[in-house]
Amino acid sequence: MRKIKIAKTGLAFPILILTVQTLVSCTKPAVQMESHQKVRLAKLIIDSTQLETYQAMLKEEIEASMRLEPGVMTLYAVAEKDNPAHITILEIYASEDAYKIHLQTPHFIKYKTGTKDMVKSLELVETIPLIPDMKIK
Amino acid sequence: MRKIKIAKTGLAFPILILTVQTLVSCTKPAVQMESHQKVRLAKLIIDSTQLETYQAMLKEEIEASMRLEPGVMTLYAVAEKDNPAHITILEIYASEDAYKIHLQTPHFIKYKTGTKDMVKSLELVETIPLIPDMKIK
Repeated sequence: MRKIKIAKTGLAFPILILTVQTLVSCTKPAVQMESHQKVRLAKLIIDSTQLETYQAMLKEEIEASMRLEPGVMTLYAVAEKDNPAHITILEIYASEDAYKIHLQTPHFIKYKTGTKDMVKSLELVETIPLIPDMKIK
Repeated sequence: MRKIKIAKTGLAFPILILTVQTLVSCTKPAVQMESHQKVRLAKLIIDSTQLETYQAMLKEEIEASMRLEPGVMTLYAVAEKDNPAHITILEIYASEDAYKIHLQTPHFIKYKTGTKDMVKSLELVETIPLIPDMKIK
């Protein structure tokens, strides 16, 4: 919050400043308010002979992250219908710090070490959300 | 709901049937319950000279869809940080019918016709969600 210097010359001027200040903060675009979020697409290709085991481990990891970590906003994972071994995860963390905490959790470490021989490729794409406060109904 | 035939030979048997029936319906995996959802990744490349206009039109279309259509569960759009003209949208519709309704809305038609010369490529990838009832906190 910026400090507002109150003029001593009367009441009308400070009220005007306060009104403009309020308008500015109310119309600030969502993208600025939420710019601390980390939003990423993880694109994975899994060894298809181990796909079922991989999916079970990923599911366990996501459920633990969502339950235990306030800073994990979502980990929405999908498999392509035509290429089920191609997985994409929309990852939203409240902040870079929340992501760093996530990396050190026992459930993430269990997933990461347990699946390392199942993951044929992993691409991490940093992104900017168009509407940062978008939800799933 | 399947009809349960009540045996006339006593009370124990129908109660057992009812208990098994209840257990089956309670333990049904989420993926079956939600299998009517349509979950898709739309991957677009936009003409970078028109990116700002495109983003404004997409934002308007998404906000209208979320506000006016109960069957649009989310349209989470991201731009790649290193390639801002590369857009990915996680699209979740309540059903195939909800998607068909979406295609006929004035806001979708306005977006589709208004941006047709801005979209250099569009790939629609049908997917299966790992955890269909996943939300964004």
